[in-house]
Parts: sequence; C-alpha cells; structure tokens
Amino acid sequence: MLSALALARRIEAGELTPAAVIDLAAEAIAAREPEVGAFVALDLDGARKRAVATAGLPLHGLPVGMKDIFDTADLPTEYGSPIYAGYRPKADAATVSLVRRAGGLVVGKTATTEFAHQYPAKTRNPHNSSHTPGGSSSGSAAAVAAGMLPITFGSQTGGSVVRPAAYCGVAGFKPSYKLLPTVGMKCQSWSLDTVGLFGAGVADVAFATAAISGRDLRVDGGTPATPRIAVVRMHIWDEASDDMRAAVETAARAAERAGAKVKDVALPEILAEAYEVHPTIQSYEAARALAFEYDNYRQRLSPVLVELLERGGKITPDIYDAGRRVSRRARNALADLMADFDVILTPSAPGAAPAGLGSTGRAIFNRLWTLMGAPCVNVPGLADASGLPLGVQIVGRFGRDRAALQAALFLEGALKPCCR
Amino acid sequence: MLSALALARRIEAGELTPAAVIDLAAEAIAAREPEVGAFVALDLDGARKRAVATAGLPLHGLPVGMKDIFDTADLPTEYGSPIYAGYRPKADAATVSLVRRAGGLVVGKTATTEFAHQYPAKTRNPHNSSHTPGGSSSGSAAAVAAGMLPITFGSQTGGSVVRPAAYCGVAGFKPSYKLLPTVGMKCQSWSLDTVGLFGAGVADVAFATAAISGRDLRVDGGTPATPRIAVVRMHIWDEASDDMRAAVETAARAAERAGAKVKDVALPEILAEAYEVHPTIQSYEAARALAFEYDNYRQRLSPVLVELLERGGKITPDIYDAGRRVSRRARNALADLMADFDVILTPSAPGAAPAGLGSTGRAIFNRLWTLMGAPCVNVPGLADASGLPLGVQIVGRFGRDRAALQAALFLEGALKPCCR
Repeated sequence: MLSALALARRIEAGELTPAAVIDLAAEAIAAREPEVGAFVALDLDGARKRAVATAGLPLHGLPVGMKDIFDTADLPTEYGSPIYAGYRPKADAATVSLVRRAGGLVVGKTATTEFAHQYPAKTRNPHNSSHTPGGSSSGSAAAVAAGMLPITFGSQTGGSVVRPAAYCGVAGFKPSYKLLPTVGMKCQSWSLDTVGLFGAGVADVAFATAAISGRDLRVDGGTPATPRIAVVRMHIWDEASDDMRAAVETAARAAERAGAKVKDVALPEILAEAYEVHPTIQSYEAARALAFEYDNYRQRLSPVLVELLERGGKITPDIYDAGRRVSRRARNALADLMADFDVILTPSAPGAAPAGLGSTGRAIFNRLWTLMGAPCVNVPGLADASGLPLGVQIVGRFGRDRAALQAALFLEGALKPCCR
Repeated sequence: MLSALALARRIEAGELTPAAVIDLAAEAIAAREPEVGAFVALDLDGARKRAVATAGLPLHGLPVGMKDIFDTADLPTEYGSPIYAGYRPKADAATVSLVRRAGGLVVGKTATTEFAHQYPAKTRNPHNSSHTPGGSSSGSAAAVAAGMLPITFGSQTGGSVVRPAAYCGVAGFKPSYKLLPTVGMKCQSWSLDTVGLFGAGVADVAFATAAISGRDLRVDGGTPATPRIAVVRMHIWDEASDDMRAAVETAARAAERAGAKVKDVALPEILAEAYEVHPTIQSYEAARALAFEYDNYRQRLSPVLVELLERGGKITPDIYDAGRRVSRRARNALADLMADFDVILTPSAPGAAPAGLGSTGRAIFNRLWTLMGAPCVNVPGLADASGLPLGVQIVGRFGRDRAALQAALFLEGALKPCCR
C-alpha cells in the first residue's frame, strides 16, 4: 500500500517528485484495476499538470480518489446510478474543494453502491476477487488496499466507511458528524451522512483529515497516549463470527499488554433502542432526500433502494420524531458511559468480507455509532485463516476525534506481528 | 393577497378551477411584476398543464413560487449569482419534490440575494417601490405581498424569511431547524440554513407546511388556544425603531386583551453570547460551503460575499467549536426559560423596510432564533405612519411548531383592526 505520510515526507525531502508519485499510482492502477474495478473515472494526466501548483501545501503531490457521490466539476459524477450517467455537476463538493486547497490531486472517482445505499458497485475485494470489498464506499477502500492510491474519500450513513475498510484491510476513519462538510455530496440521510477517509494506516488518515480540516488531528511522530478502552460486545454479539470475536479478544489483549486499561462494558439499554432506531431515521430521510429520483425514475432504481424509499415513505413524522428523541437520549447515555473511557473497542463488521459480489455485507456493527455521531476508526492488522482482513473498530467520543485516532494508532501498533 | 386556504377551499368546493386560480395569479403578475420584480423564472403554462393530475391532493391547483436557491430540473436555477447564469440542475430539491407530491404547482423561481446572503436582488417592496422588500428571500415575500402567488418558499440563515415577510406585510414561517429538508437547496451554512414559507396569513403558511410535511400543523378551523407569551426586548432593544417598539407594545397589549398571559422576560446572558456567535458559525461554514465559487470565480462574487467568505476562512476550528458549545448551552438555557411560556414575542426586524434597494436590511432580531433552531413566525397586521408594514415575531420552542403557529394565529387575530 501507499502511505500518504511516507510519500508526503519523501516529497518534502526532495526524494520523490509529485510526478513520480503519480507514476507509482499509475503503475499500480495498470496492474490491479482490471481485476479490482475501483474506479469509475480517472484522469491521471490532469493531475500531473496540476501538481506543480500545489508545492508547499500539506497534500502536495498526493493523488486522491473521491467516492462518486461527491460532485466534481471536472469529472463525471454518477452516484452509482444509471439515472446520472455522464452527469457533470457545475461545482465541486465542499470536501473536494478542501482537498484541492490542501494540495491534493483529485485523480479519479471511485465506485459507489447506488446512491451510497446497498446495490453493489462493480468493485472486487483486492484480497480475494470473489469477495465483496464492502460498501458503500467500495472503490475507495479497494483503491487504497490495492496500493493504487494513498488517500481516498468515502461517506458513511450506516457503515459505509468502517466496514469496507475492514473488509479490505485498510485504515478507515469516519470523523465526528459534520466534522467534514457534506455540501455537494449526494444526500441519503442528512442526520447520518458523514464524510470519511481511507488510507494505508491510522496515521495516514489522521494526516489527511488534519490537512483538509485545519484541525490538530495528526498522530504521527511521537508515542500515542495509553488509552482507557471499553470493550463493547453489544446486544448483537451473536451476529459476530467466531473469527471476529477472537479478533476483538486479540485486540483487547494486545492493547492491555501494551499498557492500556481495558475493561468489558455493557451498553445501557437505551443504546440498543437507538440501534433499532437507525433504520427509521435513515429510511425516513432517504424517502425525502431521494424523492426526485423516486418520483421520476423509479424504474431505474434497484429493488433494494425502492424498498428503502417506500419503507421510509410510510414512516410517520411522529415515529421519526420519537426516533430522534431516542437518539438524543442515547447520545447522553453514551457520553455518561464514556466519562470513564477514552474509546470503545468493538467489531468493525460481523466478520471478514463475505464471499460473493451480490451484497456488500451488513452495517450492524456500525450503524449505532453513526447515529451517535461518534468518530470511528477501522484498525487493520488482523486476518482470518484464509488471509482475509478482519478489522476491529475504535469508537471515540463525539468531537474527540484526536483521542479516537490516537487510540486507534496505539492499537494498530500493538497489533503489529512483532508486538503481539 | 391570495389566501392559499381560501383558494384551496373554493377549489375543493368546485367554485374555482385550478386554471382559474392560475389566471388570478397571471393577472396579478401582469399588473404588478414589472414594478415589483419578484420572479427570475416563470412558467404558468407548464403549471396549467400539470394542474389536472393533482386533483385530490392538499395543494391541488395552488401555484407556488420557489426561491431561486432551490434546485429545479424544469426551470433555471441561478442562486442569485452570475456564475450560475442559465444553470439547469439535473434534479429537483427535496422540498420542491414535496411540494409537487402535495399537488402544488411550481410556477416560477423567485429572486434571491446572491447565494441567499446580502447582495440584493432586483425585487422592490410592493408597498413602496423605493424601499427594499428585505432579503434574502426577496422575491418570495414580495410575490405574496403583491397578490401574485398564494404560497412561496424561501430560506433563512440569519433572518431571510421573517425579515422580508415583515417588510412586505405577509406571514412568514421559519419552522424548526430541519423540519423541512434542505437537500438540493444551495448551502450557505449547514447549521443554520432552514427552509421557510410565505403566505397571506398565518393559517395559510401552516396549511402549506402541513401539506408538504405530513405533520399536524394546520391551525385553521377552531379557536387557537390562549398562549402564554414572554415579551423579549433583547440586549439590542436600542436598535429597534420607535415604531417597532410601539408595535411590540401594541401586540403585547392586544394579546393580553384577547386573554393571553403576557409577561416581560429578560434573556439569560448566555443568549446574548449566542447572538454574538451566529456570525462565527455562519461565516466559518459559508467559507467551506462556497469554497468552489470562491476558489474558481472570486471576481464574480460581490464584495460583501467575498468579505463573508474571507472572514469565515480566518476563523479557526477551535473558535468555531467554542461557538458551537455556546450555542448548545444557549439552547438549553432557552428551553429552561420556555418551560413557563409557549412563545416569545419580539420584533421581526428593527423597523419597517428601509428606503433604498442597496441593502435588504438587518437580521439582528432574527439570527439568535435561527441559531437556536426555534420556529419563528412573522405576524403581519401593523404598519407605521407611512403605511409600511411592521411585523412582530412569535418564536416558539424547538420542535413545537404547532404551538408557535397557534400563538401567531392568536396574535394575528388580536391585531385585526376590529379587535385592537
């Protein structure tokens, strides 16, 4: 994989030119893209031309991929839907502009499930092409995993960053709700949609998030603080595979050996209620956010999306409002629980990437945290017996993104084969 | 003015056809539009053709105007900016779809200030064409005031619904934050932007909001409950004109005579702090939301917008985060204060519409309530000595939109000349 931080340091030291970095990406894309199918649009030459003007900026010379639900004025934007075939927006999404301002070179658009919901993209898992890469940010996770790009952007409404990162064995970071702007990103659910990032390691996604947000989020250079970790198995623990349960156990023990305080914690009942509420919020809002597409192009929507929109259309405002109240109470309860911990450790997904490309897997270990607005990091480094990645998830407190990234970096280090 | 409720009732009773309603609008437009300049796009014929298919729906046959920051697939969408001259989006904004689903006939786009900020639109105040109609929803307020349309939509980030409603002498309703979806509406500030409506009277905007949201918000038919009203003069009371101070006094006494409990209340200090924080939140977010336009078309932005975006670009994330914390504390303090009251009565604007078209007036009596996410209603019915409208504002509790509308209806009734 290409580490954004390592590349940035070598560029800064004059050991690599931006053109050489784009060549590295181009070579990997030539070698892997035919099998992986991470991209729906690509313009490496355009990026080469723009590279010079970015000297001195934090992402100078780094090629970046944007999930194809971010509007781009210079590349087609299709939202994973035939309705938008060849569509070229007038303006860039805000996050695209922030990437460009930071010197990042937007080289392509990565494959997304239809409107970032469930209907799969063409992408295959770089570790085993008969397995899903996860979704909805399928191409963004796979592009990093296949060593084609150092940084890609995605979005999460249920588990669309953390799950594909776990399935593809890369670092995935869903920051706190609204830390990065969703303006110009196709909306599915305004209370849930969150911009996220993929990179080779935790320090890489932290570096890129810091670069575009201007926030003090870098965690490279220096030893991460020793975190207090709550191991949370949730009420759906039965849904985790044996491999995943073992991975959480391995991660907990590795963190402990590295000095972390680790304690098993049961979630208050209101969080299980909130878990049930997520689909209510998501579908109610999706039925409104995608009303134009449903009303005008229903025949061109997948059955799974039609089902979501029709389910959401039947939810009354009273039920939706009640769901929002549950969500608010759950956030307060979670804040109380987190008073004694820096982060939660929990699965990133039910297990390794499922076989088949007809489904992108399930977001059951993600959606509660998305609803809570909490920062979530997929920590890569573990694998099942067949070599497929198994990701564990660090969940931080809302607004404490730096602490979440530091704890994730700590765990990532503790999981390195040398340390385990 | 055209009352949406009265028209809907006559259509339902078979006394009026939708075509006849469109004729009414067309006549008023022919008579007033050359002077008022409320529209930037108009298609009455298209609406005539679509009218039949809306039979049985709540807004059946009612022509509706959308502020030109809502995307429309069948009408140009220019956001009040030359950058978007002739732009035709691929999809309708969610609120546009909801209007169509409810049977409303979108007949045109109304003039907006540049990106719903301060640089004025061409619109003139229907009561005196040398005065501003207010902004940013200038055309939407003026179109209703001039009797050209029964319902129009706008948006409020500072005071862009309540203020132009007050200046134009119509009912304006800014619902609770996110009650109506902002998807497909050009974003200026994601924490503040709120969809709102204009109509002839309070019952009209309540009727239309109920129709498109499916919420129990209608307040027509029946006597409104007697509200408990807190009269709030705010720390900026000195900025209100003598006329406006007298108008608030008149409104308070009229409400009292009609049976309301009315009490003067001073706001806790944290609300004055929140008042100061609004521009921080707005400009920080605008600098990101409009990053593409600033980075690519700076020469085509007005000086006042460039100033906003550059000011916002200099605000650090720490200052922004501190502002959000102030805002959260202020919301809690406001909720505590409102435990003893149904609504607040306060000015809708510093006074009547100022002379001149170079400014749309000031949002100083609106921005705090927008930041609080509270439902706000401009109650028309008062005027200064020259006959220009003076609006007073009812502010409700977040999520209690029905109570706010009921109290506004109560006050509207109490202010009728017969009752004062």
